[in-house]
Amino acid sequence: MLHWEDFTPGQITEHGPRLVTRDEIVAFAAEFDPQPMHLDEVAAAASMLGGLAASGWHSCCILMRMLSDGFLSQSDFLGAPGVEEVKWLAPLRVGESVTLRATVLETRPSASRPNMGLVRFRFELLDAAGRRLMLMTVSPMFGRRQRA
Amino acid sequence: MLHWEDFTPGQITEHGPRLVTRDEIVAFAAEFDPQPMHLDEVAAAASMLGGLAASGWHSCCILMRMLSDGFLSQSDFLGAPGVEEVKWLAPLRVGESVTLRATVLETRPSASRPNMGLVRFRFELLDAAGRRLMLMTVSPMFGRRQRA
Repeated sequence: MLHWEDFTPGQITEHGPRLVTRDEIVAFAAEFDPQPMHLDEVAAAASMLGGLAASGWHSCCILMRMLSDGFLSQSDFLGAPGVEEVKWLAPLRVGESVTLRATVLETRPSASRPNMGLVRFRFELLDAAGRRLMLMTVSPMFGRRQRA
Repeated sequence: MLHWEDFTPGQITEHGPRLVTRDEIVAFAAEFDPQPMHLDEVAAAASMLGGLAASGWHSCCILMRMLSDGFLSQSDFLGAPGVEEVKWLAPLRVGESVTLRATVLETRPSASRPNMGLVRFRFELLDAAGRRLMLMTVSPMFGRRQRA
């Protein structure tokens, strides 16, 4: 079980890969982000994306699931107060195999709760060639092994 | 059809309400954010959330869908380069009826593309009592009615 003390600035871990299918891209978009560029090849080809690509929110959700499987499920993870930044750098295409790279930027104890601390991460979603598709900065909270 | 020119700083629109059910909270969490606090009442009651609540990513996705139905589907919407900030302020509970409030903060033409512009929004997800559950700042891109 990982606690706040187990994260150190500079730590880098990689998780995945995970294959992203056309069916899941279209199903997600139909439910949450029904723009033609995420639903239909012809409309997508005429859009700025230049072809069918996943909703940026779908990329966030895929990242969250890879993160959960990668290490949150084996951590004393307490949620996050929000998201500092998301950048969608390149389209996530049908059939892409994505990897999650997690880099610890800094750690700090909670000012108000002595039994937890925050870990500021940069998460990057990479395609099979190692190109960055998405960048996210977020500070999840973890339980401390020892109270402050 | 709404274009970039139709958005003006200070404009406020409200969309919804939308009822959020236990089934959709649990289904979303099982797929993308399988933490016990989003899946199971007993585990959730013992967590910082104090009871079953939607994944923060689910709140983002619900907001995106309300936004699509609210006005993006009737706009020349071209996507967004990323998200500036998300804050999860209070838990989104089973059976809550949420409203989306969209405030235009500023508009600016695209530096590189004369046929589009960006609109910086603050989006707030409100519960039935008008309390803010989530805040998001993001700058979607829209086509211009007239090229720069």
